[in-house]
Amino acid sequence: MYKILDSIQNPDTLKQLSFEELVVLCHEMRAFLVENISKTGGHLSSNLGVVELTVALHYVFDSPTDKLLWDVGHQAYVHKVLTGRKEDFKSLRQFNGLSGFLKRKESEHDIFEAGHSSTSISAGIGFATARDLKEAHNEVISIIGDGALTGGMALEALNYLGHVKTNMKVVLNDNEMSISENVGGLAKALSRLRTTETYSKVKMDTKATLSKIPSIGDNMIDFIGKLKDSLKYFVVDGGLFFEEIGLTYIGPINGHDLKELIETFQMIKHVKGPVLVHVLTQKGKGYAFSEKDPNKYHGVGQFDPEKCIESKAKNDYSKVFGDKLIQLATENQNVVAITAAMADGTGLNEFASKFPNRIFDVAIAEQHAVTMAAGLAMEGIKPYVAIYSTFLQRAYDQIVHDVCIQKAPVVLCLDRAGLVGNDGETHHGIFDIGYLSHMPGMMILSPKDQFELEDMMQFALTYKEGPIAIRYPRGKAHQMGAGREHTQSKLTFHPEVLHEGDKVALVATGKMVQTALACADELGARVINVSQIKPLDIIRLESLLQNIDFVFTIEDHTISGGFGDQVISKLIEHHSDLMGKTKFYKLGIPDVFVPHGDTDMLMQDLGLDKEGIVKKVSEVING
Amino acid sequence: MYKILDSIQNPDTLKQLSFEELVVLCHEMRAFLVENISKTGGHLSSNLGVVELTVALHYVFDSPTDKLLWDVGHQAYVHKVLTGRKEDFKSLRQFNGLSGFLKRKESEHDIFEAGHSSTSISAGIGFATARDLKEAHNEVISIIGDGALTGGMALEALNYLGHVKTNMKVVLNDNEMSISENVGGLAKALSRLRTTETYSKVKMDTKATLSKIPSIGDNMIDFIGKLKDSLKYFVVDGGLFFEEIGLTYIGPINGHDLKELIETFQMIKHVKGPVLVHVLTQKGKGYAFSEKDPNKYHGVGQFDPEKCIESKAKNDYSKVFGDKLIQLATENQNVVAITAAMADGTGLNEFASKFPNRIFDVAIAEQHAVTMAAGLAMEGIKPYVAIYSTFLQRAYDQIVHDVCIQKAPVVLCLDRAGLVGNDGETHHGIFDIGYLSHMPGMMILSPKDQFELEDMMQFALTYKEGPIAIRYPRGKAHQMGAGREHTQSKLTFHPEVLHEGDKVALVATGKMVQTALACADELGARVINVSQIKPLDIIRLESLLQNIDFVFTIEDHTISGGFGDQVISKLIEHHSDLMGKTKFYKLGIPDVFVPHGDTDMLMQDLGLDKEGIVKKVSEVING
Repeated sequence: MYKILDSIQNPDTLKQLSFEELVVLCHEMRAFLVENISKTGGHLSSNLGVVELTVALHYVFDSPTDKLLWDVGHQAYVHKVLTGRKEDFKSLRQFNGLSGFLKRKESEHDIFEAGHSSTSISAGIGFATARDLKEAHNEVISIIGDGALTGGMALEALNYLGHVKTNMKVVLNDNEMSISENVGGLAKALSRLRTTETYSKVKMDTKATLSKIPSIGDNMIDFIGKLKDSLKYFVVDGGLFFEEIGLTYIGPINGHDLKELIETFQMIKHVKGPVLVHVLTQKGKGYAFSEKDPNKYHGVGQFDPEKCIESKAKNDYSKVFGDKLIQLATENQNVVAITAAMADGTGLNEFASKFPNRIFDVAIAEQHAVTMAAGLAMEGIKPYVAIYSTFLQRAYDQIVHDVCIQKAPVVLCLDRAGLVGNDGETHHGIFDIGYLSHMPGMMILSPKDQFELEDMMQFALTYKEGPIAIRYPRGKAHQMGAGREHTQSKLTFHPEVLHEGDKVALVATGKMVQTALACADELGARVINVSQIKPLDIIRLESLLQNIDFVFTIEDHTISGGFGDQVISKLIEHHSDLMGKTKFYKLGIPDVFVPHGDTDMLMQDLGLDKEGIVKKVSEVING
Repeated sequence: MYKILDSIQNPDTLKQLSFEELVVLCHEMRAFLVENISKTGGHLSSNLGVVELTVALHYVFDSPTDKLLWDVGHQAYVHKVLTGRKEDFKSLRQFNGLSGFLKRKESEHDIFEAGHSSTSISAGIGFATARDLKEAHNEVISIIGDGALTGGMALEALNYLGHVKTNMKVVLNDNEMSISENVGGLAKALSRLRTTETYSKVKMDTKATLSKIPSIGDNMIDFIGKLKDSLKYFVVDGGLFFEEIGLTYIGPINGHDLKELIETFQMIKHVKGPVLVHVLTQKGKGYAFSEKDPNKYHGVGQFDPEKCIESKAKNDYSKVFGDKLIQLATENQNVVAITAAMADGTGLNEFASKFPNRIFDVAIAEQHAVTMAAGLAMEGIKPYVAIYSTFLQRAYDQIVHDVCIQKAPVVLCLDRAGLVGNDGETHHGIFDIGYLSHMPGMMILSPKDQFELEDMMQFALTYKEGPIAIRYPRGKAHQMGAGREHTQSKLTFHPEVLHEGDKVALVATGKMVQTALACADELGARVINVSQIKPLDIIRLESLLQNIDFVFTIEDHTISGGFGDQVISKLIEHHSDLMGKTKFYKLGIPDVFVPHGDTDMLMQDLGLDKEGIVKKVSEVING
């Protein structure tokens, strides 16, 4: 039971509270977050860091008339609680439960969805421009972290905003830590700002200002009015990065000083044009364990709130990747690693310790990462670029234009390919075969297990003819058998039969090979592993499909443009006489976005677990 | 005959020239450019603007040991002339002739290819990092225009560079005009710099510096040494955008003062860390007509050098698009246009005059453009986003993440879909069906002629269920017949038979419908127009293919992941009994990058002109 928090039905009820009650609310909010996230898992540190910030925003602005746009969205739990979703936190990130990100269908207060970073300023400009076209007068506020600000599209948007001078606010939530350590000249500039001693104090009649706002009661006005003498706005004089490109800069503000936040937000309502408020927050604030190690508490599973989380030894694909890359780098001095603010997530932390001069963490800047890799590759260096499948989407054009056209021997390592689980729609890596396969000269590999991943990374080391993309899933690495023989040819990982059978063939790739094998005995099916998707050894695959009546391709990727489509496309081009004799069925992800939830549950829901596949195949072959 | 220019075989011969001879060389270079481009067509203004800059770079630095990276690359003609390709200019941009962009196979001096903008700093960082890993000592110089600097990836790269402090130079070629008028807060900051009065003069012993450089003869050292007193370096004090993110800023330099350029480049060799040299150039410099209207002379066809080019009335697809959008905007006040520095190219100039408050040119910032459009669409505004097919690649992730997931009813208008001709590899719009078709909820339309384009734009106005992409080609608009009936359903533009025939069907989309019709009589073929690629009305298409033995899909897109693959994928999913009875052949662009050349010639080379298709089909049906 929370005294104040339990009474909050929506942001309007929030506005009835006294300042003291707001302070209590913030305290209760932190307790609520720790209590709930310890049961469900989720993003903890980022949400603990924005408690006062979110309360102040909802106190001052009138959502949903005023538009709050949360960049990424994994820090919007407080926003969710304040907008009537407290009771739903029991189901956080679970299948059919509350999303860990913003969702329009959840609330009228979730006006724009995200998941990938750096989009909120562009989206905010869209909302503000629409408002101006409609001659409305609401506020638009984009809340973006300092990490997300390194993304090129955020910089594009800032540059545009400084030019068009649209009325909107950008709240820079500077928590001095993105998911990985922050990178960039801009980060250093922010760091200088944090410690600046020179500022000018803006004098304002706060009470007069506040009295114009109808929703604030007189008591509150009096209360805040009394505090006006302590009002501080650190407007740094001229020359600053943001001022230079045309924004009014205000800050830095203590993001845990509720009074300062409220007063600042009241004040900026009266500033015309684009305003950037620089707010300093501490990730993990108010919970001892996460204050001490906010990174560890960034995204967590269930935990005991009384004890610090212990790091467990993992044997997931990211670790296999990281370990193998250390081995390759030890053998060959041309091996380097590139990551985009995800050294930890992609398993590169140990590599970074061992080879600090041979890992390049470029911040959230996937476009730059890929083209920098192309530059390195042109000079004989072998870059392994480790980026989640979903985030590599940001670099689609760079892969075509800078890597493929020049046949740059870059190794793209797509971690988190397939369904990722609780992060949901925005994070599933289910389009990569689709977006890579039509790029001329791209080789696409998809290992069935740990050993194939290692073999593929080894193969890539000496392959010089062009780029290679290796897609591998999130989670525990499968170990199905010893490594495969391979040669330095374009068709190196041939389709292989892993289980004999007749009549029915299950042709699977990546982690789905394991699932196919699990179905094999019951169905008497031939199981074929295709770990090289492009170029596809269609001659060999066709020969393995002779005397088969029903072929099922199986993948953890959209059916549209996916592995099954690759197989069928090539069989058609080969004018295979299987067409007509053999029935083809493509099992995979249908043409919809897949929601969040436990991966096993999602696979079950999609009919892509063992039971679903056996059922589907049985239905087909039994007519 | 050019006195000095004709003697230049490579950059080394350039270094033997006296300063006076270099000045003559620049003069001759301009005459050469005008003479040759007037015969072949090509990019004129941008190259006239960088004559002294390029001469100075090759005079001071030692390409290819030192690495010159030209952003975009359409301003590298002078570089090509100086690196031994003068005689090849007769074939500029022609099939099998000299490329209008950098090409590694053309010269060891072309070290990194481009075409799309904003890549050169990332690539340069790659080259510089490789140098450091190899403990080499060459210089790396990225030359980037002020327009390209608005691209997010260039900003990502600057931010990274300011952080890692790699030794490299960025030459900012500030010609005060990108292809469209420049947009952005950064542009305004640059503008302030151009007119700044406060600078500090850097004192240097130029002679001592120059004497360290072996390739400069004593006479030259003496000559330049005498000029040292006039040396000016406008190092603007602190606070500037570039200094703020960690680069050493030097400038602005007069980009047509050869002496100042040479001395500056000599000097910066001795500056450690990342240096940005701000060079002011005038597009079209030295040729009266292009000085007066550099935009008109940006990219030209053949012209009479004695006369100003007259603007011709066009009837191309871009104009059809622009005219129709004016009509829609007149009828409906929610219609707005978004473009990314291509208002002219996409046919939006007249729209901009008529509705200056309803067009948003966001500069070279495709990512921002698309997400801003999503924001607008969420608020009931109807954005038509006009971007070339090849440049929309930059916004792949934003289309998935900000448009499709939220079903934002944005209209993506992909101009220059298909082959674009002389710009070549980097500019062909041949991947769009591939990259859009696996996105859930995306509708893909491909009009056969002007009337269908107009109908589709009209249809899009009231369609609210999600995004629509309309791809249409470069060049003259076809006019094949009156507009089509359509309803507000997802399957609105049904496959239609345009020519009766049996045995053989040509199933075409977009501009290839016209080509298919041209082949129809000779082949006795049924011609089917499929202008709605997704969702595909497969039931109707299948019914139109009954009693056909040979189906040829025809498209101006890569076969891999293209229209033909869509058709076959859906027939397989529909378990069509055509499979086995009917032979399928996919005609389109094979899995390679298509070079530059006249579009008709490229289509002929690919066997996608009338003769090629008739020949291919005849071979197939006659066994």
